[in-house]
Parts: sequence; C-alpha cells; structure tokens
Amino acid sequence: MKPKVLIVMGSDSDLPIMEEAEKVLKEFKIPYDITIASAHRSPKRTVKLTAEAEKKGIGVIIAGAGSAAHLAGVIAAHTILPVIGVPIDSSPLKGIDALFSTVQMPPGIPVATMAIGKAGAKNAAILAAQILRATNPGLTKTLRAYKKKMAEEVLKKARKIRKK
Amino acid sequence: MKPKVLIVMGSDSDLPIMEEAEKVLKEFKIPYDITIASAHRSPKRTVKLTAEAEKKGIGVIIAGAGSAAHLAGVIAAHTILPVIGVPIDSSPLKGIDALFSTVQMPPGIPVATMAIGKAGAKNAAILAAQILRATNPGLTKTLRAYKKKMAEEVLKKARKIRKK
Amino acid sequence: MKPKVLIVMGSDSDLPIMEEAEKVLKEFKIPYDITIASAHRSPKRTVKLTAEAEKKGIGVIIAGAGSAAHLAGVIAAHTILPVIGVPIDSSPLKGIDALFSTVQMPPGIPVATMAIGKAGAKNAAILAAQILRATNPGLTKTLRAYKKKMAEEVLKKARKIRKK
Amino acid sequence: MKPKVLIVMGSDSDLPIMEEAEKVLKEFKIPYDITIASAHRSPKRTVKLTAEAEKKGIGVIIAGAGSAAHLAGVIAAHTILPVIGVPIDSSPLKGIDALFSTVQMPPGIPVATMAIGKAGAKNAAILAAQILRATNPGLTKTLRAYKKKMAEEVLKKARKIRKK
Amino acid sequence: MKPKVLIVMGSDSDLPIMEEAEKVLKEFKIPYDITIASAHRSPKRTVKLTAEAEKKGIGVIIAGAGSAAHLAGVIAAHTILPVIGVPIDSSPLKGIDALFSTVQMPPGIPVATMAIGKAGAKNAAILAAQILRATNPGLTKTLRAYKKKMAEEVLKKARKIRKK
Amino acid sequence: MKPKVLIVMGSDSDLPIMEEAEKVLKEFKIPYDITIASAHRSPKRTVKLTAEAEKKGIGVIIAGAGSAAHLAGVIAAHTILPVIGVPIDSSPLKGIDALFSTVQMPPGIPVATMAIGKAGAKNAAILAAQILRATNPGLTKTLRAYKKKMAEEVLKKARKIRKK
Amino acid sequence: MKPKVLIVMGSDSDLPIMEEAEKVLKEFKIPYDITIASAHRSPKRTVKLTAEAEKKGIGVIIAGAGSAAHLAGVIAAHTILPVIGVPIDSSPLKGIDALFSTVQMPPGIPVATMAIGKAGAKNAAILAAQILRATNPGLTKTLRAYKKKMAEEVLKKARKIRKK
Amino acid sequence: MKPKVLIVMGSDSDLPIMEEAEKVLKEFKIPYDITIASAHRSPKRTVKLTAEAEKKGIGVIIAGAGSAAHLAGVIAAHTILPVIGVPIDSSPLKGIDALFSTVQMPPGIPVATMAIGKAGAKNAAILAAQILRATNPGLTKTLRAYKKKMAEEVLKKARKIRKK
Repeated sequence: MKPKVLIVMGSDSDLPIMEEAEKVLKEFKIPYDITIASAHRSPKRTVKLTAEAEKKGIGVIIAGAGSAAHLAGVIAAHTILPVIGVPIDSSPLKGIDALFSTVQMPPGIPVATMAIGKAGAKNAAILAAQILRATNPGLTKTLRAYKKKMAEEVLKKARKIRKK
Repeated sequence: MKPKVLIVMGSDSDLPIMEEAEKVLKEFKIPYDITIASAHRSPKRTVKLTAEAEKKGIGVIIAGAGSAAHLAGVIAAHTILPVIGVPIDSSPLKGIDALFSTVQMPPGIPVATMAIGKAGAKNAAILAAQILRATNPGLTKTLRAYKKKMAEEVLKKARKIRKK
Repeated sequence: MKPKVLIVMGSDSDLPIMEEAEKVLKEFKIPYDITIASAHRSPKRTVKLTAEAEKKGIGVIIAGAGSAAHLAGVIAAHTILPVIGVPIDSSPLKGIDALFSTVQMPPGIPVATMAIGKAGAKNAAILAAQILRATNPGLTKTLRAYKKKMAEEVLKKARKIRKK
Repeated sequence: MKPKVLIVMGSDSDLPIMEEAEKVLKEFKIPYDITIASAHRSPKRTVKLTAEAEKKGIGVIIAGAGSAAHLAGVIAAHTILPVIGVPIDSSPLKGIDALFSTVQMPPGIPVATMAIGKAGAKNAAILAAQILRATNPGLTKTLRAYKKKMAEEVLKKARKIRKK
Repeated sequence: MKPKVLIVMGSDSDLPIMEEAEKVLKEFKIPYDITIASAHRSPKRTVKLTAEAEKKGIGVIIAGAGSAAHLAGVIAAHTILPVIGVPIDSSPLKGIDALFSTVQMPPGIPVATMAIGKAGAKNAAILAAQILRATNPGLTKTLRAYKKKMAEEVLKKARKIRKK
Repeated sequence: MKPKVLIVMGSDSDLPIMEEAEKVLKEFKIPYDITIASAHRSPKRTVKLTAEAEKKGIGVIIAGAGSAAHLAGVIAAHTILPVIGVPIDSSPLKGIDALFSTVQMPPGIPVATMAIGKAGAKNAAILAAQILRATNPGLTKTLRAYKKKMAEEVLKKARKIRKK
Repeated sequence: MKPKVLIVMGSDSDLPIMEEAEKVLKEFKIPYDITIASAHRSPKRTVKLTAEAEKKGIGVIIAGAGSAAHLAGVIAAHTILPVIGVPIDSSPLKGIDALFSTVQMPPGIPVATMAIGKAGAKNAAILAAQILRATNPGLTKTLRAYKKKMAEEVLKKARKIRKK
Repeated sequence: MKPKVLIVMGSDSDLPIMEEAEKVLKEFKIPYDITIASAHRSPKRTVKLTAEAEKKGIGVIIAGAGSAAHLAGVIAAHTILPVIGVPIDSSPLKGIDALFSTVQMPPGIPVATMAIGKAGAKNAAILAAQILRATNPGLTKTLRAYKKKMAEEVLKKARKIRKK
C-alpha cells in the first residue's frame, strides 16, 4: 500500500521519540514511510524528500527535530502538504529551543506544532489520522474507537485507585 | 455555501488577532463561521459548538485564546476533527502562558499549535486550507499561487531595498 | 462519613504526587474521595464528577495535572466550589507549563494554584482544611497544632545542626 | 456590617490592580476592609494586621504584591485563615518574579495563587466568595447568577460578532 | 569594488535593525551587498543567493531574522563561508525565539550568533571586519582605531557626568 | 570568640549547600553561628534570631533558602545589618524561583544576592569577609592571599592540561 | 570629604537608573564618586578605576550595567572590596540577561546582586550604607531612621486609602 | 607548526566540553593551543594570554565558560581577533545564564556565540576553520569534504532506519 504519512527526523538519536508516532500509525493501519534528513547536514536531501512526498501521494509530513529545530519549517517552505512539527528535548535547554524554533513560524508558512517529546510524537500521528480521515472515511471509526478507549482506560485506572 | 472552517475565540478582545485568519479564508474563498466561546465562562456552549461543527460538515476548527488558553484543548477533547490552536498574547506573560497551555497537550489529544498572535492566526487559516485541499482540489492551485506570490513579494522588496 | 474533599488527578502517574494531599487529609481526619479524570481523555467524566461533587456535599475540589494542565480550570468552569490546582512536573518543561496552564485563569473562573509538585499537593490539603474550618470548627485546633508542630520541628532541627 | 475579607497590598501603586477585587466584593455585597502593608517596609504592621484579622472574624485575606512578592507568604505564615495571593506585574520581569515568589510556597504554608494582574485580583474576590459561601448561603445564588451572566455575555458578544 | 559582505534579512521590516550593520561597514569602507531573502517564503532564492555569494568572492554572510529565525541556519547549511546570525525582536517573545533558533545549531553547522537587535547587527559588521582583516590588512588599523575611539568616548562621557 | 557571621537556612535539607559557606568561614578563621529558621514555618524564631544577631555583635547575616525563598527578605526587613541571600535549587524550577524571590527586593530593603547553589554559598562567605575586613584588618591579608591562590590554581591546572 | 562609595556604570544611558543610588547616598550624607567605565569598551580604565578605588579608601563599589553585564564581575575580579551589582533593563530581554550575567558569578568572586533597575540602584546605596556603618557608626541612626520612615509612610498611605 | 587557534576555558571542569573543539581542529590539521584562564580568578593571565595570542599569529580565539560566562567577552574587549564563545551548562540554570552572558554583548565588542555545550564546542572549531580558510586555502577542500561526509552519514543512517 502506498505510504500516506512521511515521518522525517533530524538525527537517528531522535528515533526513540519518533517511534511513538510509528506505533500509532501502525495501530491505525495507516501506511507510512520513515527516514532521516537534516535541514542543516543534508539540506538537499530534505528538499528532495519533500518534493517526492508530494508526488508519491503522501498526505501529511511529520518532522521531529531538536535544538534549533529548523526541519519542519524548511520542509513546510517547500510544500503545500500539512507539516506537523515535533520539538525534541535533546539540548540543555530541554526542548524549549526546539519548541520556539518549530512553532514561531512567520506568516505564510504554518507548522502544526505538537508538545515536546514523546507526547508530541504520538499526537502527531493522531493529528495525521484526523487529517487523512477526509479521504479515508474508515479512520472515522478508528478515531472514535481510540477516543472511547482512552476514556475507558481513565475509568479503569480510576477504579484501581479507589480499591487501594 | 456550507462553512468548512469554524473559527472560535475565547473573548471578543481576541478579534483583532483572529481576523487575520478570516482574511486568508476570504481570500482563499473557503466558507467559514466565526464565533466566541469560552472554555471557562461558557463551557457548555463550547462543547455544543464542537458537536454541531462535526454534524454541519465543518472540516477544521481554529481556536484562539490567551492566558491559560484551554479553548483549543477543550474543543479537541470533544471532537475527532483537526483542531488548530492560536495562542494569543493578552497577559503580562506575553503569550508564553497561552503557548504552553495550547501546545503541551497530553498524549491522545493533539492541538495543531501555531505561532503566538497575528502570524499564528494567519497560518491557522493556511493550514486549514492545506488540510481541506484533500477534499477540495481547487485549493491546490490557490495554495501554489499563494506560495509563489510570497516568493515574488520577497523579490520585489529585495529590489526596492537595493535601489535605496 | 461523607467525603468533604475530592482529589482528582489527570493520570495515575500523578498519584505519587497527589498522595501528599491524601496523607495530610488523613492526618487531619478530613474524609475525602480520590479519583482520576482527564480534562482531555475523559471530558464527560470530569464534568460529571464535578456536578456530583456539588450534590454530594463536597466542600473543596483539589485537581492535579501536568503539561497543558487544563483539569483544574475545566472543573472550575463547571462549579462554584473552590477549586485548588496542583501543577505537576511531568514534561520536559519541568512543570512550568502546568503552572502557567493552571494559574493564568481568565477573569471570572479562579483556580487556587499551589506550588509545582509534592509541596503543592501537601499545601492543597492544608488549604482545603483552612477552607473547611468555617463549617468544621474542630479544624481550628488541628491547624493551630499543625502550625505549632512545624515551628517546633524547625527548632529541633536547628538544635541538631548546632551539635554537629 | 463586619468585614469578611481583608484586602492588603504591598504599595499604593498596586491599587489600580487590587480595585478589581474590590469591585467584585461590592457587587457581591461582601463587606471588606482594604489597606496597605509591606512585608519588607512595615513587617510589624503586616503581622499585626494578620493577627487582628483573625480576631475580627475576617474569613479570607487577599494579598497583592509585585517583585519579590513576599506579602501573601508572610501573612500565611502567621494565620490559619485562607490567604489568596495576587502577583502584580510591577518590575521589568513582568510579574513572573511575583508569581514565583507567591506560588512556590514550601510545604506547610499554602498561598492560593491567582493569575498575574487584574484577572488575578478579580478572581481573588470570586474565590473569596466561593470560600465564604459555606457560612453565607446567600452567596450560592450570587455565584450561580454570576456564572450564568458570564455565559450570557459570551453569547451576546458571539451574536454581535456574527452580525458584523 | 566587489562586495565582501552580504547582508541578508528575512523581511523588509528588519531593515531598521540591519542598517546598524550597514553603517559600520560604510564607516569601515568594506564593500557590501544588502538584500532580502526568506528561508520560508523564498527558500530557493535563499539557496541561490548563498551559492552566488561564494562565487562572487563574498567573505562573510550576515543574516538577520526574527521569530523562528531559520535564515542564518539555512544559509549556513549551504555554504562554507562564515555566517553571522542576528536574532531580531519581532514577535511577542521579544527575540528569545529568534535567539534560540539562531544559536542552538546542531553540531556541524555553526552560526556565529550576535546579541538580539541593533547591538547584534552592529557587532555583526565588526565581527565581519575582524574576519576580513586576515586578507585585508588595512582593517587592522581601522579596528584598532575603532577600539581606541570607543574607549575615548567612554572617557568623554565620564568627564561630562562628573561635571554635573 | 564571639560569632561575626550568622548563617541561617530555611531547612536542614539546605545544609549540603550552606556548608560551602561554613568551610570558607573556617578557612578564614571568622567565627560564625549556623542555624535553621523558616520564614514560613517558624516566623517568630526568624524575627527573634535577627534581633539577637544585632545585639550579639553579628556583622553579617547569610540566609539560604529555596522555592519561594522569603528568608533573606524577611530577615532584611527586621535589621540594618547587611543580609546576603543564597538562592537554593530545591524545586522543579531549578532555583530560578528562589533567585527571583531573593533578588527582586523592593526599594528600601536590599538583599545581597549570590549565585544559585554551592557557588553562591561559597561566595556569600567571601563577601562576608570583604564586609568584615573594615573592622578586622587581618582579613585584608587573608583575602589577598585567597585571590592569589585562586590565580595560582588556574595556572597549575593550565599546566596540567598542556601536558596532556 | 573623601568618597566612600564609587558608583560606576557601563554607559551614560544607565544614568537615570543609577541616579537612584546617588539620591540615597546624598540623603545619607555618604561621600561618593560617580563615573562611567565599560568592561568591554574601556577595559583598562575599568581595571585602573578599581585599583585606584582601593588606594583612595573607597569602601564599597556599586556597578550598574545592562545586557551581558560583565562590569560588576570584572571589577570584583580585581579587588577585595565588596562589589554591589545592579542589573539594568536595557535590552529586549528586559534585564534578565543582565541579572544572570551579574548574579551567577563562579565560586571565589562574589558580586552582591540587587534587583533589576531603579529598585536595585536604590538598594545598592542602602546596602553600601549598611556595610559602611561598621566604620561609620553615625549611619546606624540614619539607617534606623530610614527604616522607621518607610514604615510610617506605609501607614500614611494606608490611611489615605481607607478614606477613599 | 605555529598554533592558529587558541582554545581557552574558564575551568578544568570545562575540558570534556571543549575537547569537542580540539577533536575537530586535530581532524582538520589546524595547529592550536589549549589552556585555562578565568576572567574572574585569573584576570591578568586572561589579558596576557589575549595579548600574546595576537603577537603569536593566532587567528581565532575560542573561549568556553559557564555560569556568568564573562570569559569570551573579556577576551574580546582586549583584542581585534575574532572571538568565538561557547556557553557551558555548568549551573542549575542549565547554561542559559552562560548563553545570555556570552551572546548579549554590547555594541562594539562582538562575540561569535555558539550553541550551549558540546554542539557549540564542535561548531566553534568548524567556524574557526571557516575563518582561517581565507589565509589557508587548503581548508576549502577540508570543509567541503566535511560537509559532504555529514550529508552521506545522514543518508547512511536513513538506510539503516529503513531496514529496521
């Protein structure tokens, strides 16, 4: 099946974070591609991947990076696909540098920014599913079930806590 | 024509910011609805608007709020539509409170967070167009033209600066 | 005995923090209920718990949450009971996101915000006791004794340090 | 009628902020006293006012201060009354110094901290009303009406915005 | 004379800041080119300008940008020329977003980051002169004279203050 | 010999930090007293210790505290002795709360604030020595020797590094 | 009369802030010298002034600077006199850069850091008086009177507010 | 061969960070000298080293320091050589103090500031190479090869990730 989501990360050290996005896409049965491209160390590859993504029919790009995280912004500069940015906590500034570098985009070039770290990576995949739902109505059921399951899990945990 | 985007803001004082989103949607000819609902002062209305949005065929919700900006998060809790959050600079903390309250969503409930203030409101509308493009192919041309125009405007300004 | 305080937390991982509130309520012999409800993953449950709390005669609600901590604010939106918020350090931003999301409430909907983490959870219970004292005069003695004991413990530690 | 709330501020320059608390108390017909006491410039007066407040039957103390805002904490150290702290934006650090100095209280001595500035002052009075309601059931009606009015005002503004 | 320095800025609104760099280069008689290129709105132009700069014999590139200031980083990704970054205060975050986006570059791609705003733009030009001095020994005299003049101006101002 | 410096800390958990001040005072042969007093848990003791310090001939008070560190400010409110404040990193905010609470004193009541943590505790003792030197000329030699030794140690370490 | 305090500032634009220190010294009849010296633009002058200060019998040096405020630290590196640092709000970072640059001194070289801006400049002079009191017992009366006057002024303002 | 780069650090504890600069210089075959000098503990040595560096034909100075990191600024005050500053994370403030103290230099005295920590140290050496290239054309090949290798390594890692 053709990939619908492209996950890009700035470095292989970002993999343990970005795998949270992978897990959700697998669970949601959304085909995806995952790769590494650095806005700074491999700028041409980043631009090329972005152009190819459009051609291949990718519907959403998820980009995770730390420090002066330019990756999502650079990708967004080269595409009209929705770009989701995941700031990663990989410098002494604890990801606040990556957050500001990802979210404070100038007018004209949006990056849909998620929370710093694993929560953000997971939510990137859920947002991708919410976006892809428009052309993949099967995801409606998936997303509603996911929401329901989350509520049920809260309830289950609430019951456990009471027993204690 | 049925609205495709719902713009919600927490207070009428947020209007000068959120009008930036309106302007883009008008320019892109995307039908939208715009209203006020507070996560805190009118929580029932917020939930009701969200439920109605899904039924009415809204494709994207844009929510702008300041201070402890819970609006986008509360809306996202009640829908599987993509929710775009615009943090607004309306407290002494200059919008960093609204940014953290909007972007640091827990796993399970994404909010696509934009830059603080006018840049963010404008980008929210562009991201909405990028999302709606999947079911409205006419937006492809609009978005490509917009991107081209931005590049041309940079060039025009660059020429002006040289003449000086 | 009917519970007088309701402790709610956003996730079971917040329990080690919120137990600090429990311990004080037990020591003060204030009956309480403790449960989990997420403003985002189980929004209906959160609203329902809040409504029930008012009916059951709960006098104070304590809500602990991390990241974009909307829990206390969402509860406060649905009740006229005093709501005490405990920001929890559970993201790379070290609880400053939870602090801003809890304390920067807009005019009309107060959340009595405590310090980040264990100190805040403990103080939430003491503040609850100070509030409940109005209708439970026995707490006057408890609170005065607690204050006295704190001062004595400082003295005891001061003596130990001198001996060294 | 005997005052039920004591509003204290660190300096007369804080009055334009703390008047927001006054307005709400007047509207709610809650008798109050308002005065100035500095934790640093008049420490004895601060302690004396606190002791007198307990004797006079004050139910809640509201303390507003800027910079290294010790006022609420120092008052809380001397009383078992609930103390509400309002951080004021009166230094180059925009009130974040006052927020940290007010909210980060050590275990044992809670200060119910509000948002920085006017929103916080207003909410301090509402929280005071929520606390006093236990012994003044008339406030139940007042608080429910206030909540209802807030929701209605949102609706009114939403209608206005639509007409535009 | 062939330009030795290229000043690039992300938007024409950055000109009042970047003119501080211009003034110094003029005073130091260092030929320069000045233009606008956005990493996001005109990414191709940015890459092209960078490539041309190398060919034209430019010795140093100065890049000024605000918000998620990717400009200097994107330029640095495409050249082995020294790139000096000037973070500009043009968002509610007061330039701290631009600072982090400029300075927190990942290993491999340095950006010589200056102070936020006018001080930084001025210093960018001085640093450019210090770098160009290696191949333009005339600048040694210029830079020593500049340093001397600064010290003398301090002395002059010190005398004035004493007279008062 | 009568103590010349009083070291006070807010909690016994601050001892590993404040011992850095002790070590320097011992090395400098400055007699001192060390104790615990909390601005919040034992406010009367804090005031009493301060008053006694003046009477006993103490020349400088060093106060170390974390979180909403009011200790140095409360002591300074009650004395005309120089008060040195050491902010301690003992909350999730990493001491920035203690720094702001200690340094941002309002006009009229200075606290001589040191760096956060061990560096600050050590420097508090050195500053105390610099202050006491006025009435204890023997400290001139001690302080000059200390400065010299520091410079020599840098040199020694520089030599070691070269050998590597 | 020989000056006892030396006020140094990094730039003449800092004068409106540092005049707050002057006013207090005049009121306290403490002879002082005031001048400009930049740690960066006139480093030799800074070192020379420091050396002369020791010889002239200066008892305390007050140094005010903004941005990367190295002035107080550089002076402290060259003297065993107590050095008081006043961080000045003169950059987009609102003085937090000056605060960190002044207060976070490494072990061995203390700078007695005051609040950012005018409050800090005023307090610098009061701290200087507290230090000089050891050798100028007349200041005891001055400082006690000042403290008393501050308390009285609070009382006066409190009375005024009540009348309203 | 005569050293072309001087690496200075404020303390031997900074060595594990600054070795990242050393490694790159070795790899690039750029002769360098490495030593320790503290702006505060050995100010004369710092000034002397700087003066000698100019005489010895050093082309670039790299200075790494933590806390109130004045080292790069103090060196820059005494030379017209390009000075590269590396802020080091060695205090509870996680290097943000060192970053502000290094980058926020006043107009007239630039410091080319790098990222906090190891990434910054590595980049300092690369920037030094970019600067020295003007008089050492052999570095052109080295720098281009380094850039190429970085891009290839990204590709290699991207392939590995795909295989998984």
